[in-house]
Amino acid sequence: MARQSNGVSAISRVVRVLDTFSFEAPFLSLSEISERAGIPMSSAHRIVSELVEHGLLERMPDRSYRVGNRLWEMGSRTPGALGLREIALPFLHAIQSRVRQHTQLLVRSGLDVLVIERLSSRDAVVNASIVGGRIPLQHSSSGIVLLAHADDDLLDRVLERGLAPITASSLSTPEQLREAVAAARRSGFAVSEGWIFEESRGIAVPIRGSQEVVVGTVSVVVPNDHSPVDDLVRLLRLAADGISEALLRSYLPPGHPHARAGGVYRQLVSSSDRSMEYFEHLLEDAPPQER
Amino acid sequence: MARQSNGVSAISRVVRVLDTFSFEAPFLSLSEISERAGIPMSSAHRIVSELVEHGLLERMPDRSYRVGNRLWEMGSRTPGALGLREIALPFLHAIQSRVRQHTQLLVRSGLDVLVIERLSSRDAVVNASIVGGRIPLQHSSSGIVLLAHADDDLLDRVLERGLAPITASSLSTPEQLREAVAAARRSGFAVSEGWIFEESRGIAVPIRGSQEVVVGTVSVVVPNDHSPVDDLVRLLRLAADGISEALLRSYLPPGHPHARAGGVYRQLVSSSDRSMEYFEHLLEDAPPQER
Repeated sequence: MARQSNGVSAISRVVRVLDTFSFEAPFLSLSEISERAGIPMSSAHRIVSELVEHGLLERMPDRSYRVGNRLWEMGSRTPGALGLREIALPFLHAIQSRVRQHTQLLVRSGLDVLVIERLSSRDAVVNASIVGGRIPLQHSSSGIVLLAHADDDLLDRVLERGLAPITASSLSTPEQLREAVAAARRSGFAVSEGWIFEESRGIAVPIRGSQEVVVGTVSVVVPNDHSPVDDLVRLLRLAADGISEALLRSYLPPGHPHARAGGVYRQLVSSSDRSMEYFEHLLEDAPPQER
Repeated sequence: MARQSNGVSAISRVVRVLDTFSFEAPFLSLSEISERAGIPMSSAHRIVSELVEHGLLERMPDRSYRVGNRLWEMGSRTPGALGLREIALPFLHAIQSRVRQHTQLLVRSGLDVLVIERLSSRDAVVNASIVGGRIPLQHSSSGIVLLAHADDDLLDRVLERGLAPITASSLSTPEQLREAVAAARRSGFAVSEGWIFEESRGIAVPIRGSQEVVVGTVSVVVPNDHSPVDDLVRLLRLAADGISEALLRSYLPPGHPHARAGGVYRQLVSSSDRSMEYFEHLLEDAPPQER
């Protein structure tokens, strides 16, 4: 893209403007956007106006702005986020209906876990996860599982950033982190006891995609009562295996005997079998039978 | 933003590039992006490279591209989409656990409904809804409900676009559409019988936000067996009332006696009560008690 006079491209400025919105600040005035993005008012005004035109921002009656549904709509085309969530959701529900605390789907994003889905009951234990939010790898049982299946380089980068322990129970030394990662590599799961809140415990297992590559985790956050985790680990593994199988069936070539119906739609959509058959027909010249 | 020589701004080009990805085509090569966006290869290459740099697109091992998780992450800051979904989800689950077909949350976007959430059982009836996808207002029971609570101008615009009936049961004349909208205004719900698939039926009720403004619908898609809809309408209304109340409590000023805990987080997050109390404390200078 064309560079502006100050060397920052138009795309960078758009990203900066959109990045000013956060869970703490879902509504912002133009001057707040300008200040947070470090972009002069006049440029911020032009960018914001054009983003509103495209629906990526929405202007509220009080003249503040919020992120527009159009951006959410574009973000729903992500096989790695919404597509994975679509496939995993029935399995997450199955866990949540038994555990009735928090059930989560996470992927790695840089040195953090990114929360793709979180189902919560109202009376569940305290949990810092927000859908679309991030948690540093070293504070999360899912983060430890993801570290256990990544190159050692990732662990070094986490140590470089600093462990920044939150509670007295958080991992606070490189040795503790290395030991937790090694344990997860051996056992195939990780448990975080009181790392963010003393009263909460996370338990995570990996989800494998094609060629056994770990693509994310499924986890629960439950009260930190030091009870045995075997039953929960078994439940999580059943779900993770189910998600893995569904993932593989979604990425098999459509003609394959084990492929799920739905053609290319399978990478973003997981609806009823009859609906998937309909989507598959959509791509053919002939109209689907049910029309 | 600076206009390019051809009069198309940088933001428009970014939107065009991101818009080339669809449910039918979640993975695209550079030349496909260039062709679909109507942007020359050299410019497309520059834009795509920069979008990859920011994580808004991801490059796959086979050199194709897909929409990046970073775009989904940015789209999770939408009070009108993900925020509404967070608040509605427990109510949608309650419906789905009883109906076990499809349960949906939709909002209006232009002349379409935009699908914010869809829970489906595997053996449910055929349904065209995709999370993040759109359906023309006149083909959907939710669309009729949204038309019933909008200005007459919207109905005129739908008629201008054309009804484009799909099945023999679809609304095919302006009179039929006006009658369906008037009936929804009287009864407070809408039923679509065989409008997209002869074998499927949609039933939708409005969700009201502050000042009774209709902000979306909750609906089910069930077999089109012409059975009485009273029980389903009652179930949907209970859920819609619950969502409305939770919405209002999320937008009351934090100090209000009926306000839900969570401070500004309430507009994007709906987790357990203990978690919402934690989020509320996050914004204060004092660290939360549980740390």
